[in-house]
Amino acid sequence: MTAADSTQDNNLAAVLKPGGSFYYENRELPAINSDRDVIVKIIATGLCGSDVHYWQHGRIGRYVVEKPIILGHESTGIVVACGDRANGIAVGDRVALEPGVACNTCDQCRKGRYNLCRDMRFAATPPIDGTLCTYYRVPAECCFKLPAHISLSQGALVEPLSVAVHACRLAGDLQTKSVIVFGAGPVGLLCCAVARAFGATNVIAVDIVSSRLTVASKYGATHTYQMSDASSEENASDLLKAAGLEDGADVILDATGAEPCMVCGLHAVAPGGTFIQVGLGRPSVTVPIGQICDKEVTLKGSFRYGPGDFQTAVGLLEAKRVNVDGLVTHNYSFSQVEEAFQNVANRVGIKSVIYGPEVKGETANAVVA
Amino acid sequence: MTAADSTQDNNLAAVLKPGGSFYYENRELPAINSDRDVIVKIIATGLCGSDVHYWQHGRIGRYVVEKPIILGHESTGIVVACGDRANGIAVGDRVALEPGVACNTCDQCRKGRYNLCRDMRFAATPPIDGTLCTYYRVPAECCFKLPAHISLSQGALVEPLSVAVHACRLAGDLQTKSVIVFGAGPVGLLCCAVARAFGATNVIAVDIVSSRLTVASKYGATHTYQMSDASSEENASDLLKAAGLEDGADVILDATGAEPCMVCGLHAVAPGGTFIQVGLGRPSVTVPIGQICDKEVTLKGSFRYGPGDFQTAVGLLEAKRVNVDGLVTHNYSFSQVEEAFQNVANRVGIKSVIYGPEVKGETANAVVA
Amino acid sequence: MTAADSTQDNNLAAVLKPGGSFYYENRELPAINSDRDVIVKIIATGLCGSDVHYWQHGRIGRYVVEKPIILGHESTGIVVACGDRANGIAVGDRVALEPGVACNTCDQCRKGRYNLCRDMRFAATPPIDGTLCTYYRVPAECCFKLPAHISLSQGALVEPLSVAVHACRLAGDLQTKSVIVFGAGPVGLLCCAVARAFGATNVIAVDIVSSRLTVASKYGATHTYQMSDASSEENASDLLKAAGLEDGADVILDATGAEPCMVCGLHAVAPGGTFIQVGLGRPSVTVPIGQICDKEVTLKGSFRYGPGDFQTAVGLLEAKRVNVDGLVTHNYSFSQVEEAFQNVANRVGIKSVIYGPEVKGETANAVVA
Amino acid sequence: MTAADSTQDNNLAAVLKPGGSFYYENRELPAINSDRDVIVKIIATGLCGSDVHYWQHGRIGRYVVEKPIILGHESTGIVVACGDRANGIAVGDRVALEPGVACNTCDQCRKGRYNLCRDMRFAATPPIDGTLCTYYRVPAECCFKLPAHISLSQGALVEPLSVAVHACRLAGDLQTKSVIVFGAGPVGLLCCAVARAFGATNVIAVDIVSSRLTVASKYGATHTYQMSDASSEENASDLLKAAGLEDGADVILDATGAEPCMVCGLHAVAPGGTFIQVGLGRPSVTVPIGQICDKEVTLKGSFRYGPGDFQTAVGLLEAKRVNVDGLVTHNYSFSQVEEAFQNVANRVGIKSVIYGPEVKGETANAVVA
Repeated sequence: MTAADSTQDNNLAAVLKPGGSFYYENRELPAINSDRDVIVKIIATGLCGSDVHYWQHGRIGRYVVEKPIILGHESTGIVVACGDRANGIAVGDRVALEPGVACNTCDQCRKGRYNLCRDMRFAATPPIDGTLCTYYRVPAECCFKLPAHISLSQGALVEPLSVAVHACRLAGDLQTKSVIVFGAGPVGLLCCAVARAFGATNVIAVDIVSSRLTVASKYGATHTYQMSDASSEENASDLLKAAGLEDGADVILDATGAEPCMVCGLHAVAPGGTFIQVGLGRPSVTVPIGQICDKEVTLKGSFRYGPGDFQTAVGLLEAKRVNVDGLVTHNYSFSQVEEAFQNVANRVGIKSVIYGPEVKGETANAVVA
Repeated sequence: MTAADSTQDNNLAAVLKPGGSFYYENRELPAINSDRDVIVKIIATGLCGSDVHYWQHGRIGRYVVEKPIILGHESTGIVVACGDRANGIAVGDRVALEPGVACNTCDQCRKGRYNLCRDMRFAATPPIDGTLCTYYRVPAECCFKLPAHISLSQGALVEPLSVAVHACRLAGDLQTKSVIVFGAGPVGLLCCAVARAFGATNVIAVDIVSSRLTVASKYGATHTYQMSDASSEENASDLLKAAGLEDGADVILDATGAEPCMVCGLHAVAPGGTFIQVGLGRPSVTVPIGQICDKEVTLKGSFRYGPGDFQTAVGLLEAKRVNVDGLVTHNYSFSQVEEAFQNVANRVGIKSVIYGPEVKGETANAVVA
Repeated sequence: MTAADSTQDNNLAAVLKPGGSFYYENRELPAINSDRDVIVKIIATGLCGSDVHYWQHGRIGRYVVEKPIILGHESTGIVVACGDRANGIAVGDRVALEPGVACNTCDQCRKGRYNLCRDMRFAATPPIDGTLCTYYRVPAECCFKLPAHISLSQGALVEPLSVAVHACRLAGDLQTKSVIVFGAGPVGLLCCAVARAFGATNVIAVDIVSSRLTVASKYGATHTYQMSDASSEENASDLLKAAGLEDGADVILDATGAEPCMVCGLHAVAPGGTFIQVGLGRPSVTVPIGQICDKEVTLKGSFRYGPGDFQTAVGLLEAKRVNVDGLVTHNYSFSQVEEAFQNVANRVGIKSVIYGPEVKGETANAVVA
Repeated sequence: MTAADSTQDNNLAAVLKPGGSFYYENRELPAINSDRDVIVKIIATGLCGSDVHYWQHGRIGRYVVEKPIILGHESTGIVVACGDRANGIAVGDRVALEPGVACNTCDQCRKGRYNLCRDMRFAATPPIDGTLCTYYRVPAECCFKLPAHISLSQGALVEPLSVAVHACRLAGDLQTKSVIVFGAGPVGLLCCAVARAFGATNVIAVDIVSSRLTVASKYGATHTYQMSDASSEENASDLLKAAGLEDGADVILDATGAEPCMVCGLHAVAPGGTFIQVGLGRPSVTVPIGQICDKEVTLKGSFRYGPGDFQTAVGLLEAKRVNVDGLVTHNYSFSQVEEAFQNVANRVGIKSVIYGPEVKGETANAVVA
């Protein structure tokens, strides 16, 4: 079967087999089970490094692809049905989806940290199916209406933008602060954009690949720095000098998870500063703990997103305080799933988006007139 | 010259020569230079690992013993003179000394983080002389009157108690929380005591040496755990089981700086938990950053103490909410400085205290009737 | 029908008619509707000022008794049935009930402030029925197991204790602080107890009735002060003097809602201090706003309780850090509802408790052996 | 003597006599007394309501004009001399002055709340002289270099801008929030500007005078609302409707101190919202405390400014995130002090500025080329 076999009443899905190959199949149409359920016709899905990692390696930490799974979790769509108490959501709404469905009743949920929910069901994290399908069901609290000027294609960036919002919030007040962002991929660039929108005076984008840095200034970076072969400590010293920050940077956001970046960042952070680990690479790294102690640094892991992050992401887009034009560099039809994954694996462009089955370009790119 | 040569008007001091030997010499008597200055006759000085480290290794990080230096910074004494605006302090007061004199005007000081003062002068950190002398000068804000029932000898514990207070405060609200403390030396034991006083329901003291754990319950520990030869991850699992904490501990306080303890603690901390690095060992450690990210852990370096910490330490003693009886295990006269340092280097007992020149036992041990 | 008519399968309830009279009737037995539902046989219900206010005045603000309503919301009971996913709760458990059932999905709930839930269903707040009945249904997150040494009768104090916990938490860090509590009724006394358990050095209980102050020291107060006929400002000055707090008190908890207490408290609070309004009296009061501005006071309304408050209340009892012995001064059988309300209206004793239909004294007073 | 008598070496000052008349006299030239002292030639001084209040009424609360006093505290100038340790400040620097000189050693200062300093010396608050003179001495920490594009005349707005920064910071995170600002005078307009710069999506400026509202949109307001004769409650309802905020506003900043504004704001604030009292009017007001309790509102007094506020104010100007063009509506030479005060008393224009003796327009208005 191919993607072309789908009809309007089907729920065609792209499924990853354990071992790493995709196939298409029709899945059961999702139904309104609870009065807060919303059924969304998926229009666009951005690909994330984690999707590609499951495809290539079959696991991330304790999450293993043991059965066929639908990947994809950075999605937008159009509401096609909703329960009686799906407050604020109506059929026809253009929405971005929050891919994590929390239990809402455990102690972590109740105290406002639902990203740490003990019973989280997160799209495309085994064994929960993701959004590379035709119709998807979420509770109303996971639907966020897109601003009129944001297309459903661009809206696929609301999820990574929420990751950046969450990380920047963990960093505390950024007004007139200096911020270094390691990594100029989608999340790193969005961290630059959010840090700037949140009031940072200096935002230094850092990467090892110079071509990625060229676009950074379009998304909020005031300075760029290309990591050299020198030691992390020398790189820290050089980048602070380049940015005119003799006392160190107030905040570091590491969107790479790479040890040299972490080490560089911990040498570059100012006394009393904050270091946010946004991206995750290897499970263990060697860090200069002495820097953390002597400068009384706060280092926080940033995990997905929590209360208000999607609302803030949408609010930043609505107010045009964050610009995502040009971040979607590659577009794929639903029949090109494997090609799309390969492109991301090759680290080409910034964000690759796969459109839902039978989605026309005019739907994905339309904004509200 | 020996310690015995001192007379009341002298300022006999024990001085460390670069290279590691002590000698006694008379130093100039400190004078009231500013109207907030206070001159204190030193009665008791507790020895700290950092004192011994300077003696044995001649440096800690960037601080190097390049010229003769007086060590000692955990001191109490009796006020013998004070300036006109040394508010609240009077001649005859029995006081504990805060050993760091901040500039009070840099941005870190002004915003309430004077432990990060850009111009800090800290006793016994090269090139600033410490308190192993007869008379010492501090500004009024560094003098804290001892509660009536605390002897000047016990009062030497106010400094490490303030370290523990600072660390526990960084950990946030501890009411009915579970806390694991790595290291059962003086700071670790005081962390147990403060965590318990701050409302922790479970306080688990962890050490590799079983004899140190035996006293932990006297100072607030509800459970003890001796680290085994197993992996840090297994130790984490075992200690959580032993303490009945299946979801992990809310807070970890590491007073060792040892990598196995840090790794164990990061595996043992609950999702959303906090890890405070109190002690410092090697400048670099390998940590399970994946644990920090997935559980969105906050890791903070704790550096000395800041606003209100000495007041709180004294308040806890005053209200008898922290018990320090028995923590001073070894007492040395001023002529025994080298012997005292050797004892601490041999890790014998808990806290060793050196008395000021010509200090009589009855003075050091007296409390206010 | 009277209370005596009830049988085990009935759900006898005491119902308040609009207009102010009670009658007994059998209500339908509650059923397990969702897999997180728990059915509790009610053993003890403490009476609250709000219950009596509905009885006497038929309304509190916008909440009006328009139809018959069951009052009571400070309850304990024994679990008689539970759904499949009522995690951690089992038949036979002795539990205290949290009387507010939040929607868990609105933005307030999601961000950890479920006491401000836009769709809250709160027991005994019209039109939601309360707990003066035989069997009551709550979701699992509203059940809190009682410590073994706390009887079901004493457990009725968990709800007002949670009110006190919430208020004290809003006040921030209380370690070695000074706290003034206005009002020595049940909530005020429990505020004293919690403030002390949370580390306050000085806790001053204030009331106009001297007899209420006599027990305050049993529940954490270190000082008591009886308001005089003098001005609020003079009372503030006098009480600070009496408590030895020349610079003002760090924290004020007003559990009266009476204007003279609020004014006194705002004059007594220290610069930079915090004022928590726990109780509510008249809807408008005249306050010295100049005191708030000049001293940069933070004034917070405290509304019911939120995440973790019941857990902390139970934890304080479990660890015997709060003592509630003697607070239940009056006990009534289910047939004496009106008498019990009258007693509270007459402000006799501290806490009055009504037992469920057919509850034997030995059940209510039993602790776990 | 008149202003014209001054020569370069004089320190001509405009002095207010108790009773309310001004006279000019030569004061002693300030000297460098400490190595952190800075002598500034005053160029421009904005007039504040408090200056006018001292002129008209001779007192504000407990501060009474008992002896001749120099008023003025919103000043800029050029550094003419500085001590050896006036770090970062050099002769010739164009600076804005922070008018409060804190002791830096009391507990409030040490913990980062120097605006509550127990020994504050604040310019133009009796008995401390203000800046309506030729030369003025401040410590280095009170000098803030102006951005190149900000004239010394515009720089007089740094002080009220810092008031707005302090108030907005007290309000917490403003990203994508809704904010209502009562009062469209200088501080109110600057609160609008800062709230918007701090990320508020909706900023509603409210005043009773429609003409003041016309400029509000130039300084960050997204909506304006003119208070009507209706009740405060109706005004709250009407303004929320006008701004499309059905659930209330997240934050209220009251820069009026007027009771009808406070009452309106407390009805308009959303559940869980924050109310900041920036301006002070009458010392007592009647407020709907029920609104504070039921919605668990946080109400904070905002007093002057604290750590980092001036830096942030300057940073907002530097980054052109706050626009102050047009806020200085009236300019007066040093000989026109009384006329300037009269103009402010008549509430004409927005901000009136008095230039230092012999200051030329080109100096006051020049920016750095």
